[in-house]
Amino acid sequence: MSDNGWTLTTEDVEHIALGAGVLGTGGGGNPYLGKLVVQGAIREGSAITIIPPDAVGDDDLLIAVSGMGAPTVSAEKLSRGNEATVAFRAIEEHLDEKARAVVCGEIGGGNSMTPLEVAARVGLPVVDADPMGRAFPELQMDTFSIGGVSTSPAALADEKGNVIIMARTQDPLWSERLGRTVTVAMGGSAGLAMPVLRGRQLKSTGIWGSYTLAHRIGIAVRRAQREKCRPEQALAPMGASLLFRGKIMDIKRETTGGFARGMAVIQGFAGDSGRVLRVAIQNENLVAWRDERVIITVPDLICILEDETGEPIGTEALRYGLRVCVLAFAADAKLSTPAGLAVVGPRAFGYELEYRPFSTLM
Amino acid sequence: MSDNGWTLTTEDVEHIALGAGVLGTGGGGNPYLGKLVVQGAIREGSAITIIPPDAVGDDDLLIAVSGMGAPTVSAEKLSRGNEATVAFRAIEEHLDEKARAVVCGEIGGGNSMTPLEVAARVGLPVVDADPMGRAFPELQMDTFSIGGVSTSPAALADEKGNVIIMARTQDPLWSERLGRTVTVAMGGSAGLAMPVLRGRQLKSTGIWGSYTLAHRIGIAVRRAQREKCRPEQALAPMGASLLFRGKIMDIKRETTGGFARGMAVIQGFAGDSGRVLRVAIQNENLVAWRDERVIITVPDLICILEDETGEPIGTEALRYGLRVCVLAFAADAKLSTPAGLAVVGPRAFGYELEYRPFSTLM
Repeated sequence: MSDNGWTLTTEDVEHIALGAGVLGTGGGGNPYLGKLVVQGAIREGSAITIIPPDAVGDDDLLIAVSGMGAPTVSAEKLSRGNEATVAFRAIEEHLDEKARAVVCGEIGGGNSMTPLEVAARVGLPVVDADPMGRAFPELQMDTFSIGGVSTSPAALADEKGNVIIMARTQDPLWSERLGRTVTVAMGGSAGLAMPVLRGRQLKSTGIWGSYTLAHRIGIAVRRAQREKCRPEQALAPMGASLLFRGKIMDIKRETTGGFARGMAVIQGFAGDSGRVLRVAIQNENLVAWRDERVIITVPDLICILEDETGEPIGTEALRYGLRVCVLAFAADAKLSTPAGLAVVGPRAFGYELEYRPFSTLM
Repeated sequence: MSDNGWTLTTEDVEHIALGAGVLGTGGGGNPYLGKLVVQGAIREGSAITIIPPDAVGDDDLLIAVSGMGAPTVSAEKLSRGNEATVAFRAIEEHLDEKARAVVCGEIGGGNSMTPLEVAARVGLPVVDADPMGRAFPELQMDTFSIGGVSTSPAALADEKGNVIIMARTQDPLWSERLGRTVTVAMGGSAGLAMPVLRGRQLKSTGIWGSYTLAHRIGIAVRRAQREKCRPEQALAPMGASLLFRGKIMDIKRETTGGFARGMAVIQGFAGDSGRVLRVAIQNENLVAWRDERVIITVPDLICILEDETGEPIGTEALRYGLRVCVLAFAADAKLSTPAGLAVVGPRAFGYELEYRPFSTLM
């Protein structure tokens, strides 16, 4: 990356989308449609540039964008493609101030593509950072909020032209509650612009290098496909560990309260022959039990990939008979502090479990 | 009223609240708490002034206020008292423009008091007009919207400090849908600021003299109480007709989807002995059948009063055994045009009935 930033090629976007799918831990939406939109914009001449966090001034206005909703919905309800841009512009108008750059609200899954789409439309660069290093189901679950960045104002826009601004909320949980309610009323998915932050807040509370990491992961998966090596080997340099290898025997999934919730059951083969892995889902993969024993919990990453290709599988695409390998990555250190675990640890999702790093649980 | 407007006394407020209760047709919220707040503000020195519509400049910015929610909720969930003011200020901040006066979003019931509360807090006059001449359950059901005034932007605020701005909506029904959803998430009641309009729009689409009418009705009811005359006689000069006199025999009511819905059954006595009146409710009284025959529908007013005192009874306060008289008033002419009936006629509420003026149905 030069000082002027890294201007993306369509191949870079391909790799970022693939790597972001791995980091999505099953959620964040399928990157496929967003990838096509971004690649189309590049072919039509848009220069989409990724800049490092320290290229941003401390007082610069930044606005993060993402899509809100259940991946089961966004896989079926086509977006107009400009929802997040409309939300981004609505925040600028509401504040009567122009943003300096676009920030990624969630690197995992399709939400890696949303900032690139917005950047192409508004002509601003995207910062190489995000507040999750993965995907999380709820709006307040990120290092910006954990680090004290306000969740308001925030804007939600749908494909019908409705734009809602959450001008002030009592706390981050109320932002989630009201935002989820509005998203469900909008049809289950919406473009989201939030949080609004200054450069210094991004630098201190964000996770640096998210696009670079997604890009590296994407390149490694493609290389593994060419060289027929195991996904866990290809991704070991990025910190991946093999959790389990098996075939999906059962999948329960319902879309309720704006989320896709459920449980996947995987029957082991190869080194895991005779064992069973159960994975609990709320948009993302949250907790996994091997033969009834917890082996990993949020915020550590549980990534389900096609065993043969290493392609990531979203929770909306899990189905009986798929042969998968399940990889783990350690959560970013900002997520596993006491303040982080209060928001994204297993108890925040209703599980009476203490977080311990997966390396110690296994 | 002088050219400088009519500065309200606590007694004026008493009469307006009483008259607005009659015009509320069962809804708009109970005016009792709002009345105490407004009278308290006057005692503490606030000058609350009602100005005629033609005292407003054509380009002046006006913002209407009301409470949104089911009367069954607002009777039990205490407000902080400043919700509508917070919503009003949020619109001013969002537009970066100060309003010239406060407008009443709904003269019926407690919503007659809301603009007076806001006026006392922000130090602006209240225009003697409203867009209903009564109360209606849904946000788009008013002469402003019927006359083409946009339902966005609009702001909703709750007692917890949450402020939501509907910056743009696809159409008035989407404003209602999103606003209702947000109100339910806020706990079932919220302060609402909308629509935003210019003086010329108020003058052409509003119903003039709403506070004056409520005041006259209130004075007439009090006089009837002193002189022991029948409510229908006292209110005949304001256009009231007696529909029915009887005792409530049955009341079904549930709070669902943010509304109080139900049916009241009244067994006739005196001149209506042997007859039964059924009244359908959605926050307000919508349609009445006498012995299975429709005798009045929205937008005409169906007002249920205590037979002995003429005090209006909100739909949340209807109960077995109450002796009531049911009065009718003709709807304002702006509501019974084809464009008006499309929004507030019986079909808009799901009844397969043609609107005909109650005087021809009876």
